[in-house]
Amino acid sequence: MNHLLGSRHTIILAVLLVVATATATFAQQKVISDDTQECLDCHTTVTPGIVADWQKSRHSHTTPQDALALPEIERRMSTAQVDETLNAVVIGCAECHTMNADQHENDRFEHNGFAIHTVVSPSDCATCHPVEVEDFSHNLMSQAYANLMDNPVYKVMVDNTNGLATFNGASFHHEGADDMSNADSCLACHGTIVQVTGSETRETDMGEMNFPTLSNWPNAGVGRINPDGSKGACASCHMRHQFSIEVARKPYTCAECHKGPDVPAYKVYSVSVHGNIQKSVDKYWDYKAVPWTVGKDFTAPTCAACHVSELVNSDGEILAKRSHRMTDRLPWRIFGLPYAHPHPINADTTTIVNQGGLTLPTELTGEPVTSALISADEMAVRTTNMKNVCSGCHAQQWVDGHFARLDRSIETSNYMTLQATKVLSTAWEEGLAQGLPQGANPFDEAIEMKWIEQWLFYGNSVRFATAMGGVDYGVFADGRWTQAKNLQEMADYLKFLRAGQEKK
Amino acid sequence: MNHLLGSRHTIILAVLLVVATATATFAQQKVISDDTQECLDCHTTVTPGIVADWQKSRHSHTTPQDALALPEIERRMSTAQVDETLNAVVIGCAECHTMNADQHENDRFEHNGFAIHTVVSPSDCATCHPVEVEDFSHNLMSQAYANLMDNPVYKVMVDNTNGLATFNGASFHHEGADDMSNADSCLACHGTIVQVTGSETRETDMGEMNFPTLSNWPNAGVGRINPDGSKGACASCHMRHQFSIEVARKPYTCAECHKGPDVPAYKVYSVSVHGNIQKSVDKYWDYKAVPWTVGKDFTAPTCAACHVSELVNSDGEILAKRSHRMTDRLPWRIFGLPYAHPHPINADTTTIVNQGGLTLPTELTGEPVTSALISADEMAVRTTNMKNVCSGCHAQQWVDGHFARLDRSIETSNYMTLQATKVLSTAWEEGLAQGLPQGANPFDEAIEMKWIEQWLFYGNSVRFATAMGGVDYGVFADGRWTQAKNLQEMADYLKFLRAGQEKK
Amino acid sequence: MNHLLGSRHTIILAVLLVVATATATFAQQKVISDDTQECLDCHTTVTPGIVADWQKSRHSHTTPQDALALPEIERRMSTAQVDETLNAVVIGCAECHTMNADQHENDRFEHNGFAIHTVVSPSDCATCHPVEVEDFSHNLMSQAYANLMDNPVYKVMVDNTNGLATFNGASFHHEGADDMSNADSCLACHGTIVQVTGSETRETDMGEMNFPTLSNWPNAGVGRINPDGSKGACASCHMRHQFSIEVARKPYTCAECHKGPDVPAYKVYSVSVHGNIQKSVDKYWDYKAVPWTVGKDFTAPTCAACHVSELVNSDGEILAKRSHRMTDRLPWRIFGLPYAHPHPINADTTTIVNQGGLTLPTELTGEPVTSALISADEMAVRTTNMKNVCSGCHAQQWVDGHFARLDRSIETSNYMTLQATKVLSTAWEEGLAQGLPQGANPFDEAIEMKWIEQWLFYGNSVRFATAMGGVDYGVFADGRWTQAKNLQEMADYLKFLRAGQEKK
Repeated sequence: MNHLLGSRHTIILAVLLVVATATATFAQQKVISDDTQECLDCHTTVTPGIVADWQKSRHSHTTPQDALALPEIERRMSTAQVDETLNAVVIGCAECHTMNADQHENDRFEHNGFAIHTVVSPSDCATCHPVEVEDFSHNLMSQAYANLMDNPVYKVMVDNTNGLATFNGASFHHEGADDMSNADSCLACHGTIVQVTGSETRETDMGEMNFPTLSNWPNAGVGRINPDGSKGACASCHMRHQFSIEVARKPYTCAECHKGPDVPAYKVYSVSVHGNIQKSVDKYWDYKAVPWTVGKDFTAPTCAACHVSELVNSDGEILAKRSHRMTDRLPWRIFGLPYAHPHPINADTTTIVNQGGLTLPTELTGEPVTSALISADEMAVRTTNMKNVCSGCHAQQWVDGHFARLDRSIETSNYMTLQATKVLSTAWEEGLAQGLPQGANPFDEAIEMKWIEQWLFYGNSVRFATAMGGVDYGVFADGRWTQAKNLQEMADYLKFLRAGQEKK
Repeated sequence: MNHLLGSRHTIILAVLLVVATATATFAQQKVISDDTQECLDCHTTVTPGIVADWQKSRHSHTTPQDALALPEIERRMSTAQVDETLNAVVIGCAECHTMNADQHENDRFEHNGFAIHTVVSPSDCATCHPVEVEDFSHNLMSQAYANLMDNPVYKVMVDNTNGLATFNGASFHHEGADDMSNADSCLACHGTIVQVTGSETRETDMGEMNFPTLSNWPNAGVGRINPDGSKGACASCHMRHQFSIEVARKPYTCAECHKGPDVPAYKVYSVSVHGNIQKSVDKYWDYKAVPWTVGKDFTAPTCAACHVSELVNSDGEILAKRSHRMTDRLPWRIFGLPYAHPHPINADTTTIVNQGGLTLPTELTGEPVTSALISADEMAVRTTNMKNVCSGCHAQQWVDGHFARLDRSIETSNYMTLQATKVLSTAWEEGLAQGLPQGANPFDEAIEMKWIEQWLFYGNSVRFATAMGGVDYGVFADGRWTQAKNLQEMADYLKFLRAGQEKK
Repeated sequence: MNHLLGSRHTIILAVLLVVATATATFAQQKVISDDTQECLDCHTTVTPGIVADWQKSRHSHTTPQDALALPEIERRMSTAQVDETLNAVVIGCAECHTMNADQHENDRFEHNGFAIHTVVSPSDCATCHPVEVEDFSHNLMSQAYANLMDNPVYKVMVDNTNGLATFNGASFHHEGADDMSNADSCLACHGTIVQVTGSETRETDMGEMNFPTLSNWPNAGVGRINPDGSKGACASCHMRHQFSIEVARKPYTCAECHKGPDVPAYKVYSVSVHGNIQKSVDKYWDYKAVPWTVGKDFTAPTCAACHVSELVNSDGEILAKRSHRMTDRLPWRIFGLPYAHPHPINADTTTIVNQGGLTLPTELTGEPVTSALISADEMAVRTTNMKNVCSGCHAQQWVDGHFARLDRSIETSNYMTLQATKVLSTAWEEGLAQGLPQGANPFDEAIEMKWIEQWLFYGNSVRFATAMGGVDYGVFADGRWTQAKNLQEMADYLKFLRAGQEKK
């Protein structure tokens, strides 16, 4: 045995290691501010889940000065320094919910002697994480509310989807969608407008208390319009109150909003080789490491790895810079619009108008509104950014082959959408459906909705399947098969509508 | 190092802790009854998987007297005491499969000197878990067989779904569904009628043996009709032979029957914030703790947390009482019927008849059969029960806002079903489909099946998405979009049927 | 304390155990060949993810002589011995990518003094794993390319799915599918033809280098045609570069290609009792054990357990022999063809022609082409093989009941496909669609595609649900409900086409 161990000291050393670790954990000093402690005194009982969750967070264990003491590449904070009062305490209730009281004049309220705001906004988070907040503000997601609700084309789709339809024996009377239904569907992801609309007194365990009433609450959509005027909700991906980087890096976070037929990113990922490896062996991974080392910390990318995280190789060399402007690695916008096209230059897309007068980045026949979209050069830069991620594990021919297929997939799916558009135009021209030529709602009849599904579901699915290796989502699961079948059905629908019209 | 450790004794203490734990595990005395030991002697070889599974169970490690020695709130047994012979042995093969032999006169059989019954029933489990069995018996699920098969409306749907249809060139001849197809589909969840129909002799590794033959076996449906006359199968959720509370508390258990388009609970959960957190970080949770402490043992609810489990806060105060009558926290019944409505008073719903003479809790136009449904007061009590669960982590305004949306979601989805009903009624009135007015099967033609999907799939999905935060399941994934589109298609279908009728 | 521990030596022993384990890990000598070391010198930087992944693999820690020193039942290698040069080194870059240089005359290239081939083929893997490669070659999957692309019936489907359709105002002009779209969809699973088509010079971090260009690359389909003429890609299931048995045994691997509506195996598994248990408690399992002990190493089967792995009981007795010819335990072929039928005798199915002259194993009316299919005796043998797996945990009556349902499910789903065929035949006979009687493409019109979905999606789903206990996939999720509804819609479609035809 001595041969194995060298000496008795080795035993003791091993034991010490275990004990030292345990001791160190105890020794880690958590300096909770007096204000936060006061919050905790009641809320440990009132909302025990929130408090317990926060206690498991990095925020509850780390002060800004600790965080800033790390080498720059390991830092989770992007500011160089914070206010002295904040510097030496852990980030607790009061630190966030009383932050920037000046900017919260609309929504702050007196609560046991504190000026509290319920909705912690990106502007508040920017105190410690300014780069991430700035990046995110140039992100399409930060404008998700306006890009949907202030775009007349999409507003019609929202109303048609969420509003009530009343059957009169032959056709339908449509009503606009109500706020509550919108908040419960589209805006759950896109974000609602949260404003203080009044106040109310409630009987609580602590006696009578006064609270502001918030419109369209709760909401944690990525493009939420906050009471302080800021846009977005960091908690969309960094879930309260652990704000865990582990959670944000797992694909289930993105899946909350990116799993439906309109944006099947997670579904595609889950059947990809990458998704398989992640599900199969991620118990061996370190989701918390900053930076994130390819091959060592993880052996297949998650959404965050390709689109957001700072990735390094084993030598610590950067493969991809962290960016919360997710489009930095994306040349093409492949979903949500009739035709895939180069990404818009500005995150706010409500000012893009095509030649047909519609707020769309392409014509209905597919030609891009080039003035509003990134250049071929910028596309090349972004493609290179993404290819650098791939190159962590794949040789160049592999990567080039992959992206060549994406180009072809975009080309063919756009082509199949164009054919569907032709079928729909024929229906409109013949008066079989009432659409743009009639000045009528172009999206409320069955054949029109089949046209929408051609691109919003099927073209979309084909492209996602190519981009991420989702095999059957490019074929039978809303892919090329469904694309082809829907086209045939639309053409038959023309025939049936003609026959039906004769009968009227 | 001494500074860190205090003294050498600390080392020894640390080591002792590890060793003591290991020793304690060994020391835990497993008193296996002689009868069970006899079972094990053969079955370790004959069905090794069952035995190994059981060996990992709490049942194999715990005697009733151990279980009852725990403080009441930590107990998994709900009886105050058990028979002396049972008290000091672990719960093994013989304890369950020979339990209550008197009640098993129909299905017990002689097997190596024992009177064995194959199907362990809730009545047997009630020996140790009487409260759970009693609760469950007042649960809709315990009546799942009759509520489906003895309801004439649903029986027609079952036959139309599972029975053969024969094309005669123009229309179809329909046959009733056979037992085997039913057992393999609807009744896999709802439960079959399991009876002893005879006996057979089989050649086994142990020589020739005699066994009773069981009808519609295997089955583990929640409403199974057992040979001893009891209803239900505890093993539906507490899977043989670990009967693990960890498994029952994980959402994958509920997903077995609650994932399809007719009841997309798990699909919705999986994209909800709760579901994301569960998938992302449940490796840090303790799924076995009784009671279950919010924030400490788990940081987001699973199905069981909201609907079944006893939840406490960090101080041990109860937020929600354990109940196997899942409806205790549910005011509305949001799936499976044309219109959402207050929960039925009785678990057996076969006696509810509407004014139209159909065994349904609402009229076909949506008005509830109030006499059979719980009152507004009872709904308020149940809403409060559920809100108490939410309040573990959410402030009151958040919770109230959430439930206001559920009310609206119920209202709008019911409205959209009503419009679909109007379209279908028009088809029946014009003779374009043969339904209730014609005294014909109302559910076997395409337009009728589209009507069924309007509520069974889409209205349903909308409500689940609201109730649990499932975003896209309220929009594009069988949600409001599909609800709106299906309605348009039904109206077009009317036109096509009219045109087609002319041609006949 | 002495009472618990016996003596101070116990302490030391416990500690030694921990330390010895750690030391043993360090002591494990990794003899990396000089050639591989040279690869690593650059590729650690060039493709760090691959190298780090490989470092986690068994290949990087084990030499053939270590592997062969294990008792036979624990071996992962199936050859009795390997070349002396290979025997004492771990399996690294050079061992595989320079293996069998003679057979790689088409695709080997000079790379820093080595004759490298990019595509490691089953023939290369056969050096150590000959039995697995031989087994696999008799597997339908190994012929997946030809079985799809060289079957005229399926080639038409591929073209119709992936090729462009151009609307001319009334009907469509169809183009054949291009290679890139095929590689990106069907052939992602079935495999592409990978050949060297030329070479190119690239600027790399190491200066200018020359590489062969590969057609249809990347690809890892199970039936890939490799540059060395071999078929298949072991890495389909044993993902580069860990080649982990843990990954291959997890169901997510099979789900890559077996999750879509055309082959919903994983979807069904995920809601089955087996799938629930796997997801709920597999953190307690040992996915790496060879052989795999039922109940001890795992408590519910994964895909691999039922179809591939060597399973033993706690006494080490074999329940099922390992086989990479997955059909060894499968009597019926239940998906991908219009009717379920006994498995083909040969893996290459392109020579099976039915009486109607179509390359199909049954007539369009369902009768099997018996000469090409396995006999009833062989079906019985395979059924027994599978039942042996089940018997690890289930009693005979349970198992027999299960398989009786499968027979019925095959019978009824085939029957429902036959009815759909009758509807389609009527359409063809009346000229409402242009198909076989007209010598036209039988799969490109909407009603024809509805017929395809009747069997490729719905009949299929019904059978998978029965086979694996997938409940709702046998009913509302593409199951019997959808099967019944699609049939009704096809019959209505006939009416609508008739009415539409009149109008033309």
